[in-house]
Amino acid sequence: MSTLSVFLDVPAAQKLEGSLLKAYKLDNCSKKMFLAYKVCMTQEGQPWVSFVVHKIRRQIAQDPSLNYEYLPVMGMKSFIQASLGLLFGKHSQVIVENRAGGVHTVGDSGAFQLGAQFLKTWRGDSQIVYVISSQVEQHGLIFQDMGFIVFEFSFWDSEQLCMDPNILFNLVKGAPDGCIFVIGNIDYCKLTQSQWTKLMATMKKKRIFPFFDIPYQGLSTGDLEEDTRFLQYFVSEGFEFFCSQSLSKSFGIYDEGVGILAVVALNNQLLLCVLSQLMNFALALWLNPPTSGARIITSILCNPALYETWKLSLKEVAENIMLIKEKFKEKLRLLGTPGSWDHITNQNGTHGYLGLNFQQVEYLVKKKHIYVPRNGRINFTCINASNIDYITQSINEAIIFTNGSGG
Amino acid sequence: MSTLSVFLDVPAAQKLEGSLLKAYKLDNCSKKMFLAYKVCMTQEGQPWVSFVVHKIRRQIAQDPSLNYEYLPVMGMKSFIQASLGLLFGKHSQVIVENRAGGVHTVGDSGAFQLGAQFLKTWRGDSQIVYVISSQVEQHGLIFQDMGFIVFEFSFWDSEQLCMDPNILFNLVKGAPDGCIFVIGNIDYCKLTQSQWTKLMATMKKKRIFPFFDIPYQGLSTGDLEEDTRFLQYFVSEGFEFFCSQSLSKSFGIYDEGVGILAVVALNNQLLLCVLSQLMNFALALWLNPPTSGARIITSILCNPALYETWKLSLKEVAENIMLIKEKFKEKLRLLGTPGSWDHITNQNGTHGYLGLNFQQVEYLVKKKHIYVPRNGRINFTCINASNIDYITQSINEAIIFTNGSGG
Repeated sequence: MSTLSVFLDVPAAQKLEGSLLKAYKLDNCSKKMFLAYKVCMTQEGQPWVSFVVHKIRRQIAQDPSLNYEYLPVMGMKSFIQASLGLLFGKHSQVIVENRAGGVHTVGDSGAFQLGAQFLKTWRGDSQIVYVISSQVEQHGLIFQDMGFIVFEFSFWDSEQLCMDPNILFNLVKGAPDGCIFVIGNIDYCKLTQSQWTKLMATMKKKRIFPFFDIPYQGLSTGDLEEDTRFLQYFVSEGFEFFCSQSLSKSFGIYDEGVGILAVVALNNQLLLCVLSQLMNFALALWLNPPTSGARIITSILCNPALYETWKLSLKEVAENIMLIKEKFKEKLRLLGTPGSWDHITNQNGTHGYLGLNFQQVEYLVKKKHIYVPRNGRINFTCINASNIDYITQSINEAIIFTNGSGG
Repeated sequence: MSTLSVFLDVPAAQKLEGSLLKAYKLDNCSKKMFLAYKVCMTQEGQPWVSFVVHKIRRQIAQDPSLNYEYLPVMGMKSFIQASLGLLFGKHSQVIVENRAGGVHTVGDSGAFQLGAQFLKTWRGDSQIVYVISSQVEQHGLIFQDMGFIVFEFSFWDSEQLCMDPNILFNLVKGAPDGCIFVIGNIDYCKLTQSQWTKLMATMKKKRIFPFFDIPYQGLSTGDLEEDTRFLQYFVSEGFEFFCSQSLSKSFGIYDEGVGILAVVALNNQLLLCVLSQLMNFALALWLNPPTSGARIITSILCNPALYETWKLSLKEVAENIMLIKEKFKEKLRLLGTPGSWDHITNQNGTHGYLGLNFQQVEYLVKKKHIYVPRNGRINFTCINASNIDYITQSINEAIIFTNGSGG
């Protein structure tokens, strides 16, 4: 037997699992809790699933008429149509004019992988990408691996405890012509229409290419249309763009790897060229996208009664999130915790900034076994009736003991 | 609105769909038939599904205890273990010694994409790949896109109407040191143990890296172990290799995109390094592989009773294929078709060479609307009671009218 391995020079790769989750898992304390899960959690601490999904899953499993053949490279047509309808509205300009299309992908990572390969090949002159900091680990990495220069940004003002559009305006002003801006996720996009108009004017002047990221439509404000309204502005202004839409989180089918890369072009002819190139990349990446998740989503989106039930379940989640945030704020108020906590309820969606500084976050992790990312951005659905007292008391302690305010 | 499109320079990509399928779809003749489908078909002309799958699908849909959270990057551990067990045998040397591992991928294209990315990065000095001609469109393309030089090979001897190992021996002898050989699919690998030994000796001398392709274990001979026995030879000889295993076809869950990239290394430490690098690539490709198909397969493989039922269904398929081939040969004999047709029954698996020359194939396509690839390699499960007479009569006609023998 040869003793010289082919793999002799292959080093162990850096651990992929976030160091926070790793530290949490190694912690033996019974009180430990992790507040940075990606997905929406129920009050029982389980990943949320829209109840209409269970029913559909059973129906699909019992349907003898279904064909389990390979999908075409582009994916499931009805799923793509339904997804685009959700993203832009069924009667929107781009759909009526046949200039919005999509490729069915393996989740949002697949959509970014596909989009990045296209941009690498067909926009070779502009290899600079701006990615919002909360997405840099996931999407930034994809661009970086392909040789793009990736800049990370955030427009959370940790002094004023709010999103500051001016940070974004200045960033866009200073960005090089023709670069790519990954804009998402929706929680951040609480600009007013006139602020968007201002942003778009600069983007257009600098030929900045928008790559939107819609990871949980409907879970931000609880209103599907409201969550993607800003896309309409870009459509109206004649922008061409990519948009990754993953509906896994909005239905609670996290492990199905379901998404689309939506494309908006100036006309149908351009769109078809772009889609044909994207399919060439998809062919080598996975050939046929997986069907199960797309089948569940399509069954729900194409049935008016199920669609309404699903919408209701999203609204409930958004209301529950707001309720948790209200309770959370009230508990801190009752404890007399220094600082204003309005920023908690001013943020939409599952994830939001606690507005704690690094010392305070460190206190929570090290002394209280509450695992919070360095920037203090947590998943509020990880907070429930059984842990809210411990969490708020610990935050109160962290602020008093580190002798700072909430800012 | 700006009238200059960002996508102005993007041309339409070449059509991906094979030209044969395209021509078939455009044909208006009612008698038309397509004999080159990738998947195993039933006698009713539907994609085959192992009957045990339906039952499991219903059970899974009704199981309230299942968690639909994201899988880790590596995928579903139990699925990987079960797949490796199937590939090498649960008690095989490489599994006992902890030097076989795998990454859960999106089908076999995903496995080849992942493996090729690894080889591109970590074996930069050898960028030459040999791919068997039946797989060159699918896997060859992946290597080619990444900058590898791809050579196509076949060891079907169209004069003698059989596989000729000497073609393979000479090819390996002439191949450059350190190149990559994609060996599959199983139907081709009907070498005897001593022929494998001879092949391995040359491969080892030339440090050729084997990348196996197991696209339908159990559907070739009807015997799961028999179909992958040659992997044991490579293991025993101390080879390190990659192996793509896709079980979609063996269960009839084509649209689930389920596969693994199996890795065999000289020891556990090397294996872990390779797997960690593969995970880095998977992270950017799809982050989390889809679960549905893996869950179905694992449920069946890990339940002894279901496993036996599944094995039985594979055996049935293999027997049916042989029955079709026998009938096919008999019909040609009764028609007095010139030539020997033993090569039909001498080939294993769903796909096999008809042994027709190009003129004869063209006659079938153009005059008889029977769509057969240029090399005459068809899917025998596309032949059934309702079309066998038309097909055999047409072949008889093709041979007589083109005035040649079957060779």
